[in-house]
Amino acid sequence: MIKVTIIGSGNVAQHLIKAFQKSEVSSTEVQLVQVFSRQVEKVIYLIDESKICTELSQLLEVDLYIIAVSDGAISEISQQIPHSNRLVVHVSGSVPLFALSNKNRKGVFYPLQTFTANKELDFSNVPICIETETEIDNHLLKKVAHSLSELVYEIDTVQRKALHIAAVFVNNFVNHLYKIGADICEENAVPFDILYPLIEETVNKIALLSPEKAQTGPAKRKDMATIESHLSFLENNNQKEIYQILTQSILANGKKL
Amino acid sequence: MIKVTIIGSGNVAQHLIKAFQKSEVSSTEVQLVQVFSRQVEKVIYLIDESKICTELSQLLEVDLYIIAVSDGAISEISQQIPHSNRLVVHVSGSVPLFALSNKNRKGVFYPLQTFTANKELDFSNVPICIETETEIDNHLLKKVAHSLSELVYEIDTVQRKALHIAAVFVNNFVNHLYKIGADICEENAVPFDILYPLIEETVNKIALLSPEKAQTGPAKRKDMATIESHLSFLENNNQKEIYQILTQSILANGKKL
Repeated sequence: MIKVTIIGSGNVAQHLIKAFQKSEVSSTEVQLVQVFSRQVEKVIYLIDESKICTELSQLLEVDLYIIAVSDGAISEISQQIPHSNRLVVHVSGSVPLFALSNKNRKGVFYPLQTFTANKELDFSNVPICIETETEIDNHLLKKVAHSLSELVYEIDTVQRKALHIAAVFVNNFVNHLYKIGADICEENAVPFDILYPLIEETVNKIALLSPEKAQTGPAKRKDMATIESHLSFLENNNQKEIYQILTQSILANGKKL
Repeated sequence: MIKVTIIGSGNVAQHLIKAFQKSEVSSTEVQLVQVFSRQVEKVIYLIDESKICTELSQLLEVDLYIIAVSDGAISEISQQIPHSNRLVVHVSGSVPLFALSNKNRKGVFYPLQTFTANKELDFSNVPICIETETEIDNHLLKKVAHSLSELVYEIDTVQRKALHIAAVFVNNFVNHLYKIGADICEENAVPFDILYPLIEETVNKIALLSPEKAQTGPAKRKDMATIESHLSFLENNNQKEIYQILTQSILANGKKL
């Protein structure tokens, strides 16, 4: 039995708590022993109160501590764990493994997904990127990861940073383009919903074709007349500038300019 | 019975031919009479050869001609239809209604979707944006549109242009961001597939939340340390510039800069 404690009560922590509790039903190999949260009310609806602790000094000795707090607090929290030679991991895409304190064994457990408060998520479909310093820890962390998800990858710190940046492009920036699309619709009294089937099909296409082969549109077919007419239609300078730079990038086929 | 002819043999024309043939099975109100294609081999696998014509002079008189050719050819083709006072529509997002010849009644039949060669598509879920000059033509075109799709919208020329531009943002530009994500993965020997669940969830989220409320990431939380570290990781100037401009836009909440 691998004993696990989650430190944190934010979005990722809450989704992890739910996922561990769900997996405990089917697996008898991993047990969620404790959750650390300074505010009991943030996790009380998720787990039995007896398992919640509000002081780091109350942390029981377990096999694995998962630190799910903001990037800036990871290092300090890892130093305050009152045990040693345990496996301590964080869940961040951008913090290196070595940011964790030396008093425990280090690792990373990065679930590559966007977590939304109050939106259910099937954790079995969340890719978990793990990194450890030893084979034994790798084995332990992989076992825990597989108790939650079918998608477990060994990813080192540099690759994880690359993935996090790629995730910013395909998630944060893509969502911002949806926002711009919604703004343009609103300004012209068109319901944004009309675009939803197109948005879905854009994603469906790259499950079959590479994004390079899936590319269509005025820039791809070098249709300068349409590009010019779009640019003169757009009145918002910010939208215009984003239209220009992405069009240029497609025209250059994403090559270094 | 409404008699329809499709003029063109490209991607949109091919998907329309398939959709009309499929709808004929269930509906007896709309009939695809002819397809015009200069190259018989492009449509011969879709429709009986007797219905294909290769010269515009061979076009039979029908109720509705759907011109599905490249934007630049629409105006000329509409002039060469050897009949008058018929309803003639084009399928373009960016060509105005008045680009069509005056010898026939004008309309637009714009299916707002990305059409991929050799990829099946459920047309009943494709939004069709129609525009006509009279109530009678509106009624006719709406009937035809509804024989193919449940999603039919009345959209004027200016709104259609806005929708087309919004579609460029949420489809063409989004796909290009996927391409950049794939490039970053490839450069760092990480499989792009790891990002697929995140890409899907990004779309799922905006079915529940507005894109504005769904926004997450370093720029949204004004995490300048992560933004700086991402920018210094990126070596490709094109990727760096796109990262910067989209980050700035999220920081400014998409406002006019």
